[in-house]
Amino acid sequence: MKLYTAAFPPSPRRVRIFLAEKGIDVPRVEVDLVNMEHRGDAFTALNPLQRVPALELDDGTIITESAAICRYFEALHPEPSLFGRTPEAIALVDMWMRRVEFGLYSAIAAVFRHSHPAMKTSEVPQCAEWAELNRPRVMEELAFLNSALEGRQWLATDFYSAADIALLCSVDFMRPIKIAVPDAFENLKRWHLAASSRPSAKA
Amino acid sequence: MKLYTAAFPPSPRRVRIFLAEKGIDVPRVEVDLVNMEHRGDAFTALNPLQRVPALELDDGTIITESAAICRYFEALHPEPSLFGRTPEAIALVDMWMRRVEFGLYSAIAAVFRHSHPAMKTSEVPQCAEWAELNRPRVMEELAFLNSALEGRQWLATDFYSAADIALLCSVDFMRPIKIAVPDAFENLKRWHLAASSRPSAKA
Repeated sequence: MKLYTAAFPPSPRRVRIFLAEKGIDVPRVEVDLVNMEHRGDAFTALNPLQRVPALELDDGTIITESAAICRYFEALHPEPSLFGRTPEAIALVDMWMRRVEFGLYSAIAAVFRHSHPAMKTSEVPQCAEWAELNRPRVMEELAFLNSALEGRQWLATDFYSAADIALLCSVDFMRPIKIAVPDAFENLKRWHLAASSRPSAKA
Repeated sequence: MKLYTAAFPPSPRRVRIFLAEKGIDVPRVEVDLVNMEHRGDAFTALNPLQRVPALELDDGTIITESAAICRYFEALHPEPSLFGRTPEAIALVDMWMRRVEFGLYSAIAAVFRHSHPAMKTSEVPQCAEWAELNRPRVMEELAFLNSALEGRQWLATDFYSAADIALLCSVDFMRPIKIAVPDAFENLKRWHLAASSRPSAKA
């Protein structure tokens, strides 16, 4: 088994944090995004979508999409559970993970892809208007998540879950678009400190 | 238990098809989207994101996000499995579901939300340039899915899964943006006929 990963982007980081929380060690291959290795023939043969992360199983099966890779490991190594055990916890973790992905993360990614100079050769053409429409959406999503965290330690349930990992990687992905969590969002600030303090955050 | 749903949009349809495949009957409440019932106080109290579907459990817990609602029912009623049983099937179903959601569905939704006259009061402001950038993406995603279906009956694995349901609801959501699957995409055409012929498609 081999995990194709890269240091900077949020998606492979989600998988690395997930594996660290599970205590699972998987051989890794670093894909050189700066030199466009992910667009080369060898990597494109693995993942036609030309994105990391990708997991290669011993029989040659390729799994892409960070959440799908995480679900593979959850099924192989159920403990500690990061996707929930009861029907209700399973649903709440998935609901909050998706709210983060389709809300905050998608707004951040739109700003990043459509306004950051580093994305000029990947996102053709960049749509400046789309980036600007998404910038205020980032702040609205942060406000929503800040309210959701009122009186709660973690986002979805009473344990640290895949939803928290998605949120951590999203919030930290605001750095390149130069947005910080406002001090007034105290719940989110407290949550971010707690999530960042876990050893897995450095994975 | 109550399922808040609406006839037209693709997301509540995903849940209805899923329940029909499982043979589960859940009491339903129709939300009147035309008269903006989803933006009213009563529904906003249930789902602050003002979207259907939403599932209200007997203890008052609200689950939103169509895939999360489906996972709730998969956990309660595992058979027939629509998310997979083995680690590999679980990963492949989630991977293909996400490829459909973040690829085809997201491109269709961008065109619909940012160019359809019916969305003028919901999507403020509409970004015409974003709609036009996504129109060719719809066709690229259809081509990708057509290749993926080469020699395969279903999208993710050897059984009809949640990934097929996501794809069916996405393809049928192309009607309001007036894009049809080109005849040349024979695998996708064959797959669409098979998926549409299942009794669950009418749910």
